[in-house]
Amino acid sequence: MAVADALVVFTPSGRRGRFPLGSSLLQAGRSLGVDIDSVCGGRGICGRCQVLVAEGEFAKHGVVSDAGNLSPVSAVEEAYCATQPLAEGRRLSCCALVQGDVVIDVPSSSQVHKQVVRKEAEAHDIHLDPLIRLYFVEVQEPDMHDPSGDLRRLEDALEFEWSLTDLSCDILVVQQLQIALRTGAWKVTVAVHAGKQIMAVWPGLHEKAFGLAVDVGSTTIAAHLCDLSSGNVLASAGVMNPQIRFGEDLMSRVSYVMMNPGGEVEMTAAVREALNTLAVEVTQRVGAQPTDILEATFVGNPIMHHLLLGINPVELGGAPFALATDRSITLWASEIDFAVHRNARIYVLPCIAGHVGADTAGVILAERPDLDSPVTLLVDVGTNAEIVLGNNQRMLACSSPTGPAFEGAQISCGQRAAPGAIERVRIDPATLEPRYKVIGCDLWSDDPGFAAAVANTGVTGVCGSGIIEALAEMYLAGIIRHEGTIDGNLSARSPRVQPDGRTFCYELAPATAEKPALRILQNDVRAIQLGKAALYAGVRLLMERMGVEKVDRIRLAGAFGSHIDVKYAMVLGMIPDCILGNVSSAGNAAGTGARIALLDKGSRKVIEDLVRRVEKIETAVEPRFQEFFVEAMAIPNLNDPFERLQDVVKLPERVAVATEQNARSRRGARRA
Amino acid sequence: MAVADALVVFTPSGRRGRFPLGSSLLQAGRSLGVDIDSVCGGRGICGRCQVLVAEGEFAKHGVVSDAGNLSPVSAVEEAYCATQPLAEGRRLSCCALVQGDVVIDVPSSSQVHKQVVRKEAEAHDIHLDPLIRLYFVEVQEPDMHDPSGDLRRLEDALEFEWSLTDLSCDILVVQQLQIALRTGAWKVTVAVHAGKQIMAVWPGLHEKAFGLAVDVGSTTIAAHLCDLSSGNVLASAGVMNPQIRFGEDLMSRVSYVMMNPGGEVEMTAAVREALNTLAVEVTQRVGAQPTDILEATFVGNPIMHHLLLGINPVELGGAPFALATDRSITLWASEIDFAVHRNARIYVLPCIAGHVGADTAGVILAERPDLDSPVTLLVDVGTNAEIVLGNNQRMLACSSPTGPAFEGAQISCGQRAAPGAIERVRIDPATLEPRYKVIGCDLWSDDPGFAAAVANTGVTGVCGSGIIEALAEMYLAGIIRHEGTIDGNLSARSPRVQPDGRTFCYELAPATAEKPALRILQNDVRAIQLGKAALYAGVRLLMERMGVEKVDRIRLAGAFGSHIDVKYAMVLGMIPDCILGNVSSAGNAAGTGARIALLDKGSRKVIEDLVRRVEKIETAVEPRFQEFFVEAMAIPNLNDPFERLQDVVKLPERVAVATEQNARSRRGARRA
Repeated sequence: MAVADALVVFTPSGRRGRFPLGSSLLQAGRSLGVDIDSVCGGRGICGRCQVLVAEGEFAKHGVVSDAGNLSPVSAVEEAYCATQPLAEGRRLSCCALVQGDVVIDVPSSSQVHKQVVRKEAEAHDIHLDPLIRLYFVEVQEPDMHDPSGDLRRLEDALEFEWSLTDLSCDILVVQQLQIALRTGAWKVTVAVHAGKQIMAVWPGLHEKAFGLAVDVGSTTIAAHLCDLSSGNVLASAGVMNPQIRFGEDLMSRVSYVMMNPGGEVEMTAAVREALNTLAVEVTQRVGAQPTDILEATFVGNPIMHHLLLGINPVELGGAPFALATDRSITLWASEIDFAVHRNARIYVLPCIAGHVGADTAGVILAERPDLDSPVTLLVDVGTNAEIVLGNNQRMLACSSPTGPAFEGAQISCGQRAAPGAIERVRIDPATLEPRYKVIGCDLWSDDPGFAAAVANTGVTGVCGSGIIEALAEMYLAGIIRHEGTIDGNLSARSPRVQPDGRTFCYELAPATAEKPALRILQNDVRAIQLGKAALYAGVRLLMERMGVEKVDRIRLAGAFGSHIDVKYAMVLGMIPDCILGNVSSAGNAAGTGARIALLDKGSRKVIEDLVRRVEKIETAVEPRFQEFFVEAMAIPNLNDPFERLQDVVKLPERVAVATEQNARSRRGARRA
Repeated sequence: MAVADALVVFTPSGRRGRFPLGSSLLQAGRSLGVDIDSVCGGRGICGRCQVLVAEGEFAKHGVVSDAGNLSPVSAVEEAYCATQPLAEGRRLSCCALVQGDVVIDVPSSSQVHKQVVRKEAEAHDIHLDPLIRLYFVEVQEPDMHDPSGDLRRLEDALEFEWSLTDLSCDILVVQQLQIALRTGAWKVTVAVHAGKQIMAVWPGLHEKAFGLAVDVGSTTIAAHLCDLSSGNVLASAGVMNPQIRFGEDLMSRVSYVMMNPGGEVEMTAAVREALNTLAVEVTQRVGAQPTDILEATFVGNPIMHHLLLGINPVELGGAPFALATDRSITLWASEIDFAVHRNARIYVLPCIAGHVGADTAGVILAERPDLDSPVTLLVDVGTNAEIVLGNNQRMLACSSPTGPAFEGAQISCGQRAAPGAIERVRIDPATLEPRYKVIGCDLWSDDPGFAAAVANTGVTGVCGSGIIEALAEMYLAGIIRHEGTIDGNLSARSPRVQPDGRTFCYELAPATAEKPALRILQNDVRAIQLGKAALYAGVRLLMERMGVEKVDRIRLAGAFGSHIDVKYAMVLGMIPDCILGNVSSAGNAAGTGARIALLDKGSRKVIEDLVRRVEKIETAVEPRFQEFFVEAMAIPNLNDPFERLQDVVKLPERVAVATEQNARSRRGARRA
């Protein structure tokens, strides 16, 4: 017996089939495997399943599509529109019934597995496939003749409506289940974790499912609140890591524990308290509650990782730098005193080695150097630089002790990147006069109105990227020599070059009535030289181990990487030769890695497998590291041509940017 | 190239094989699949792998066995013996090396999967196979050249030495792992849950692995501390359920919650506090700590189950008596505030229906009526009677509202079973004079010295089993009539029968200077009649539903079942006809079920599957229940012969024990 049917074509998938008249578009789409979202299961209340009807003749599909070939807008759709109007031409696919041939477009916002576009250039999209999903169900009421428990009937409904089987249930949900079912008149929304565990039940339709991606840095803790159903970042916020009161840098925090047994408990409590503050702040911005956060993912260096998890970090303070665990960790939010949803889950990305943490795992996940054949260098500069080198064949990682100079610490005029800090520097090679820009002001220091524009903040110091530029410009202007000494002879040419004890310094900004002069001292140059030599030596070590003489692509992660002008880093020899166009900032790649782990459940297995494949190099026990370090102390010779760089770097014409150092390293690599 | 080898035969398994000279007996046994225990993995320190060498010619095995065919006692064995001497003829199988043919006996104490013999008659042994096992391992020290985490090296050791793979690890273990490894000089004992989860790590060899089986009763909470490696009960203890202050019986506790919203939180806290007291008490008795308890299993009626788990029980207080869940529950001890080992696990047996709880599941697991074809009736009498009827074909269960009379409550002279309570009663049919025994005294009340013997306690009341005997004896003596009235005519014959308002009563013990008389009132008889009618009606309902006219075996569980003299229960018509030899006490079968679930991990799946197969009958909505109830109010007619019973019941000759009631029921069943 033939039933009247019609052709339905779904775009962009191109899937097509004939369906009996009266079938809903949602049913039709799902039977073809078309990716259409729905939380309410086709009841016309969640609005996730919106589609567009295409009108006209589609020769490609062999169909003439007409919006009139769908059932008229139903009462259910009208009720939905009364609260949230549908855009022109949109229908709820669960309500619109097939009455003739149609071409239906499923917009990406209605797809379950949409791609989340990342803001950063060169970045892969994130595949949205969160571990936690919401399901609206109607549960059968209890019956004395079939005295099964409420939980079993809920599970039956989830199996019947959503094909979810073998579910477990958190005890805290069991405790609140009966009241939720009765408050919701036997209609509830269920959050299911990993398709296996019921972790929350709300009366009626509940559509808030938030996740938090957190980067626990030594200085700053940054968090992104994400909508698990759209993948969108709803709000971002950062707070200072309150552990700073126990020590500015990582090693001083470990020392604190060594000197004060039990001190790790205080530090763990401090970071967890800051997390709770952050969760409140970030949810308040979108009018939500911390309890709307159902999952959080974390990255951080090994010591932050251990302290967050309540693991004493002392073993990380000395050789052999043994991690408690190099595995990823999944646990309850309550196990780290994180006051979000009572059953929220935590996923902590794996650490790689004692000096290479879950933050580096996050960078690898965000950048995925393993996907391509070009050799990518990932550098995340902080007190230590985490360095990853690799491609689809191999991946190596190490940590290099750059010291805090790149962050403006241990530099006489250094300061954190904050309004008032000098971040850009130019020095006239003829007059040796500087000009500069400070954070929070768009004018250069020699522009009219600059003094007024910075009247509020003043010019307070030099931040990390400012130091790099100052030194590189000093070098380009000849103030600093190849081996790193400030040329005292120039004091005859310019009052900017001044004696400072047995050495010389360069005055960037003169003293005023309110504050002393900002000066680059010989020791400041040495501190940067030590840092850049350590960084470069780490990179060279990995390159040698991998057997490559050049890298194809450099991505600089972290705050330093975001602000630095890469050509100056190359002038100083911080990073190896690379076509400048292939050197870029990766933004907060560690935090992005946490976000990917949050939004795409499959990415967790990816990073867990990747970190096991990473070859870990411990710089402290590699004699070659010392050799590279010594070699890299000097600033690259400007007269050694490095042709690729020359093409791109728009430095003053007199500067042939290339490096004796790089040439020497290349020769060394050939010998090795 | 032939290697010299020898024949090794293991008894009692009879497994045999040839092994190269120098093989250890443990290796040899394991390669044959012989069940030999070991925690230390063959290091000669745990002593679990002891074996006996049989000497002589074993024609059956075709071998001449000689203790001299094993290597001499080694230094390792001598070191072990210095602390714990080995019994005559025993060797550590990990140290004794094969040097010639031997027959080796593996005593049951050295087997991993031994049988734990239960004290109760007719009870199945418990197959020992706990979910938690201990493993001693040596972990490789960390190495800068291979910077894996301590946890990974621990897991590697567990895989290498014990073939355990894909392990997860509790975060609390990760937190303490590094100190444990270093304190133990890289030798640790690991507790693994379900072969999958590392739940505890101790430095060095640790052999304490305890479990607690708990029966949470409305009145009493009873716990058995078990050694998970031997299956032995090390200590048992009970405490009053402190929830009694919120209500004597279950329904009054539910009422308390209804009247005092939030009252369930107080009751949950009360029962959990009592559990903690119990854990301290029971471990103190064996010189251990609550933290030595690695797992606990729980049974309890639905309301106790819900309150223990922090679930509001109000839904169980009214139709349709919906359980929050009828599934088993596995969770962390910390989730119910149980202060045992930090990572201890809790397993709560499944409830069956709103009135049939995890205690009944425990009874079913302890008794396993599903294993045989004879129809078994299990009765657990409390305020409600839980009734299970079944065999290997079917199983049915219901709960019958017997009221608290059987526990001595709502009986004018009733009291709990405690020293001073009358528990045995005999009445001379000629003189109508009673004699009795009280708990705590072996003499009858008419024995010389009785008064002195009970001087301390006095005779304070009548407990549940005493009431049953008193009424049955009153009936046999003709004081109570068939329909339950006390025959006032007898007041002429005996001063024991006394008027009491418009009815009569029977004086069991006269008033003294210190206390009033103990008298059985007409209302007391009615209360017991109502209770026994409810119990019998429940049983009849299940029998009718199952289509059987008789039961082959009756097991009475719980305190009441342990103390009652079953023939008196039959005289009153509490239980159906059954050969008296097939009626017995099952002891605290619910608690035994908890113990089985603790000791034999496979039993959990068994009971989870069994309870799903149980057909639940709700007496409240069964019209036949009312019919049976009305029919069962009277006391069975003594003149209706029930021949099987006559053979066994050693009642006074004049009593033909059989029941009009039973005959009527049989007739009714034939009609139906």
